[in-house]
Amino acid sequence: MSVGTVTVATAGAPVQVEDLRREDLHVSVSDPAAASMNFLNEVAGRFPDAVSLAAGRPYDGFYKAQDVDKYLQIYRDHLAASGLSAVAVDRTLLQYGRTNGVIGDLIARMLAVDEAIDVPGQAVMVTAGCQEAMAIALRGLCAGPDDVALAVEPCYVGFTGAARILGVDVVPVPEAPDGLDPEAVLRVARSVRESGRRPRALYVVPNFANPSGVSMPVPARRRLLAAAREAGLVILEDDPYGLFGLDDQPRPTLKALDTDRTVIYLGSFAKSVFPGARVGFLVADQVVVDAAGRRTLLADELSTVKSMLTVNTSPIAQAVVGGMLIEAEYSLRAANRHKVEFYRRNLRTLMAALERQFGDDPRISWNAPEGGFFAVLHVPFEADEDLLEVSARDYGVLWTPMSYFYGGSGGEYALRLSCSALGPAQIEEGVRRLGKLVRDRSS
Amino acid sequence: MSVGTVTVATAGAPVQVEDLRREDLHVSVSDPAAASMNFLNEVAGRFPDAVSLAAGRPYDGFYKAQDVDKYLQIYRDHLAASGLSAVAVDRTLLQYGRTNGVIGDLIARMLAVDEAIDVPGQAVMVTAGCQEAMAIALRGLCAGPDDVALAVEPCYVGFTGAARILGVDVVPVPEAPDGLDPEAVLRVARSVRESGRRPRALYVVPNFANPSGVSMPVPARRRLLAAAREAGLVILEDDPYGLFGLDDQPRPTLKALDTDRTVIYLGSFAKSVFPGARVGFLVADQVVVDAAGRRTLLADELSTVKSMLTVNTSPIAQAVVGGMLIEAEYSLRAANRHKVEFYRRNLRTLMAALERQFGDDPRISWNAPEGGFFAVLHVPFEADEDLLEVSARDYGVLWTPMSYFYGGSGGEYALRLSCSALGPAQIEEGVRRLGKLVRDRSS
Repeated sequence: MSVGTVTVATAGAPVQVEDLRREDLHVSVSDPAAASMNFLNEVAGRFPDAVSLAAGRPYDGFYKAQDVDKYLQIYRDHLAASGLSAVAVDRTLLQYGRTNGVIGDLIARMLAVDEAIDVPGQAVMVTAGCQEAMAIALRGLCAGPDDVALAVEPCYVGFTGAARILGVDVVPVPEAPDGLDPEAVLRVARSVRESGRRPRALYVVPNFANPSGVSMPVPARRRLLAAAREAGLVILEDDPYGLFGLDDQPRPTLKALDTDRTVIYLGSFAKSVFPGARVGFLVADQVVVDAAGRRTLLADELSTVKSMLTVNTSPIAQAVVGGMLIEAEYSLRAANRHKVEFYRRNLRTLMAALERQFGDDPRISWNAPEGGFFAVLHVPFEADEDLLEVSARDYGVLWTPMSYFYGGSGGEYALRLSCSALGPAQIEEGVRRLGKLVRDRSS
Repeated sequence: MSVGTVTVATAGAPVQVEDLRREDLHVSVSDPAAASMNFLNEVAGRFPDAVSLAAGRPYDGFYKAQDVDKYLQIYRDHLAASGLSAVAVDRTLLQYGRTNGVIGDLIARMLAVDEAIDVPGQAVMVTAGCQEAMAIALRGLCAGPDDVALAVEPCYVGFTGAARILGVDVVPVPEAPDGLDPEAVLRVARSVRESGRRPRALYVVPNFANPSGVSMPVPARRRLLAAAREAGLVILEDDPYGLFGLDDQPRPTLKALDTDRTVIYLGSFAKSVFPGARVGFLVADQVVVDAAGRRTLLADELSTVKSMLTVNTSPIAQAVVGGMLIEAEYSLRAANRHKVEFYRRNLRTLMAALERQFGDDPRISWNAPEGGFFAVLHVPFEADEDLLEVSARDYGVLWTPMSYFYGGSGGEYALRLSCSALGPAQIEEGVRRLGKLVRDRSS
């Protein structure tokens, strides 16, 4: 995401009565993650020739704008084939529509084919990207100031940012080298309760997490589900990278293993279709019971929140994603084979390049993710913004300080390296430049 | 907007340990406006032959899905003509993009042509519909629990709903027959300050308001700007109906009259392009000063909030609206002549039909809006949900209880009548049926 703050032409002029004071604005305006991303974008802008091992976006080369026309037409034909008149097809795409969206059934079918997740289409809410899904789930679950969310740390900044907008406190659960430890979740939940607050939700990325690249072993996933039940937590499972494992070994999502409706699954099409659709979704098949004993689906209850944030997700954007799902016969895994191969080669290239640069140096270490877009490099010096500036200017390489992904201290001696937006040759060149920086700093 | 709650198949079963209690969810899930809209949708579903004077959506007949293809192509050609390579055009539409959007310059040009609003493109943030613009502006301005928003009452439910999600208190300012009274705004702001809280924002629809149809005279608009300055309020001006006046008399927006950057303008393309794009915008050209004296544009500061809600607005949807603006040579007024004529005829038809039905009855009155989609009928009996049910079942006509648009009491003896979604013959038939109901109830 790109967050730009540009000093306006009036800089240096005296403060006018009509000016607003930044300290009077909501704390989310000054989100530290956004400030960090601003700094990163700004450095990248000043050193355009630096190789970016910071950018976590998908590779540009897969995108053809003509795909938009094609998918739109496929979805229109699908509506017509299902019996809608031409007028009704037009209305579906261009008029206001159902708050929870029109492609929930197609998404449920994809989840059954690709992930063995068995949920009705009605439990799916289509959102303006996965970011909105996070905000809606958090808002629905956290009712008051004493309701807190637990989150793996280091954590994707979009989650902590959404919580900040809603005024929901986030309590970190430290991530172990093999992912979230269910015992640690229980410990943190217990201490939250002892402080008089209520732990309501737990945010986790079980597959190839951003930023750490770490994945949870399957037995730990089962234990995490049991721990969440015990602690009264609803798990918010975010899975944007699940398709992109280094091998075809099955990695069941928490939702696929979830026999007790403990998990709200947060889905993204940004990597599997394209980011510009801004279509994501959540699966909330939990039953909600009111005081009169009336039972509803959580997805339906959350539709009120959705309606007051964005009314509904653009049906044009939904149609693009729907057309892609239909063409793919509901298997994103099958349709994304070429992307999977590309990202596998990139991650292997990154690993091999790190081994070549740092394999002989016992002071340097890195993890070996089983897939995804990210890995973490540990160094014997502080990897802060000052060093990032030096790295961009004098060494021509960008990376992300891991400290960006911690609420307090943490990550000071680590770099997040991304391998999604580059080709293999650029990755090798980037790591070569990084090697020079690290050697100069470690010597 | 359609908000559906469906009782799931497990109704009647005992509460399971895994079920969630509705009372544990956030209060916004139980938004009374959403419950009201649910009731209205549910009644409409049970009586499909009832004429709906309740539906405030734009008329379906203007929509052709082929327009989407056409506008997309125009926008792509525009990017290519401005020097972008084919790869860069693809990237603009399909990759992540600038948080505040890519068509801000086109929107600024439209505002200059149509509304004599002179702002730089950088002050425009493109949003996922006007609803998100409201939420972002409110979030940015209201920093803590003591920061409250003032809003005209009766009020569009989307505004109060967004405030509820964010935990921002809304204090009503009663609407007079000729719109918001600047003196009343000052009075309410003063009493808020006396209660130890800070009035930060004022929500108002100066042109043909939803639900009342009321417009503010131009001198009152100028006085409202002065009152807002005096009270330290930022005005949130919502203008979804401004194009649809009964005549061509100029009705300057508050933003066009705003010499002191007192107004954040909230824009919608739902009526002037189509709702399915889900593209809206806000104009925030206020200067923000931080503790170090650094000056930025409020639109840039608010981009952090936008990035944590929806990352950015779908560039595909932006391209559709951008293509329409280019084709219209930046004049929505000119491009919407046929829609303007249609809605004028509808409103005149509604007024004439009301006169025919109720002109002889001194107990019945209604207002005469200068444009827009809505008018209010005052009756000598309670127009509540029970009566709405009777009206749909026994008289075949739907309307909206005005009480839906009040936070507490108010509107009990009034109906909102909408004339946007129907043709003239249906409007006449709807009012004829309403006449029978009103006569039966008043006799």
